[in-house]
Amino acid sequence: MNSIEIIPIHGIPEVERGSDVAALVLRALADEQIDLQPGDILVVTHKIVSKAEGRFIDAQDETAYRAAVKAEARAIIRRRGDLIITQTRHGFICANAGVDRSNVTDGRAVLLPIDPDRSAHSIRMKIKQATSLDVPVVISDTFGRPWRRGQTDVAIGVSGIASIDDHKGRADANGRIMEATEIAIVDEVAAAADLAMGKSAQIPAAIVRGVDWTPGLGRATDLVRPADEDLFR
Amino acid sequence: MNSIEIIPIHGIPEVERGSDVAALVLRALADEQIDLQPGDILVVTHKIVSKAEGRFIDAQDETAYRAAVKAEARAIIRRRGDLIITQTRHGFICANAGVDRSNVTDGRAVLLPIDPDRSAHSIRMKIKQATSLDVPVVISDTFGRPWRRGQTDVAIGVSGIASIDDHKGRADANGRIMEATEIAIVDEVAAAADLAMGKSAQIPAAIVRGVDWTPGLGRATDLVRPADEDLFR
Repeated sequence: MNSIEIIPIHGIPEVERGSDVAALVLRALADEQIDLQPGDILVVTHKIVSKAEGRFIDAQDETAYRAAVKAEARAIIRRRGDLIITQTRHGFICANAGVDRSNVTDGRAVLLPIDPDRSAHSIRMKIKQATSLDVPVVISDTFGRPWRRGQTDVAIGVSGIASIDDHKGRADANGRIMEATEIAIVDEVAAAADLAMGKSAQIPAAIVRGVDWTPGLGRATDLVRPADEDLFR
Repeated sequence: MNSIEIIPIHGIPEVERGSDVAALVLRALADEQIDLQPGDILVVTHKIVSKAEGRFIDAQDETAYRAAVKAEARAIIRRRGDLIITQTRHGFICANAGVDRSNVTDGRAVLLPIDPDRSAHSIRMKIKQATSLDVPVVISDTFGRPWRRGQTDVAIGVSGIASIDDHKGRADANGRIMEATEIAIVDEVAAAADLAMGKSAQIPAAIVRGVDWTPGLGRATDLVRPADEDLFR
């Protein structure tokens, strides 16, 4: 294994409805004189993708915000006081159906993209067209989790990379066949990228370089554990 | 933000009971001509820490393995067929109480360290003594999680770094006070390090360089969500 590098992409301007995320990323990379390389993975926070897709709502007051959460949720998994753990239409289980009021101006809130895997695919295809490089794209969001305090970034949209790195049946260093090691590599990539983006730094994208990944028709929705395998719904 | 680098540490020999993990890491770094730098974080997989501490059991047969899981678990959270989700004595909720049969020879299995935060502290102090650098140490393990398929590496032992990067009350890029953004930075660091270690590559440690982290009396057990705040036990 070689070193991995996580390169924050500075200089992406405020994204609005209709912005071309791929073009903004490529322009920012050019301005910073960063060349995309074969093997690179592009991580983009969902927020700029959602904004570009016009996935805003007015959430000036609490009632509008709560209505948006309700509209975005397919199901409510748990509820305690103000905390609502929901399942989104994509299948993700997260707080407030992913409706997010931070880093948005004018009392608006940002919803998740309608189909984040498709959004990732579209960004990937545009970059491929512009650069001839087929760079996998991971769209990230910040989720809490049960049992452990704090949040981490995870993948909610994926294109061009297998979401899970399956070690099942592969021999470990002692020749023993490994049991049930399936690494959610795109979640680790999203978490790693978050380290380079910082929360209040307005860096909505990063290049992750040097990861040993497998090309594939990965989708972030592959990461949703089917209800009948899930012991915690 | 600047780039982050994740440097796998090659050349750490097989660890046995009584091995000095800090010394092995420093020797491997010297052999590879990698200089530790201020700001670096050292990530070590729990397996070599447990081995050095003699936390082996004989798990030749299934009965011995199951007995070990039972002995290591403080509580059983869920059970379905062969899958046992447990809470360990440290408070971590994971499969099989962290008892691990992969990458171990002779039918043995590895238990979690008795006190992984203390193990991390001990490694950190030895490195400080040898190099005069105060490098935070994160001990990692591979955990599954509810709702999402696949596993990711998380921190089970921490020393010298605040486990959670608390953005609560800090203004976001639009001056809005952010609500409840607490990033489990040591979990993101563990996940990032795993990308450079690979599963069957026998690289049990990595340097994570360039992260904007906060020194602190962090403990991995800080990441255990108290039962009364947890909606999923």
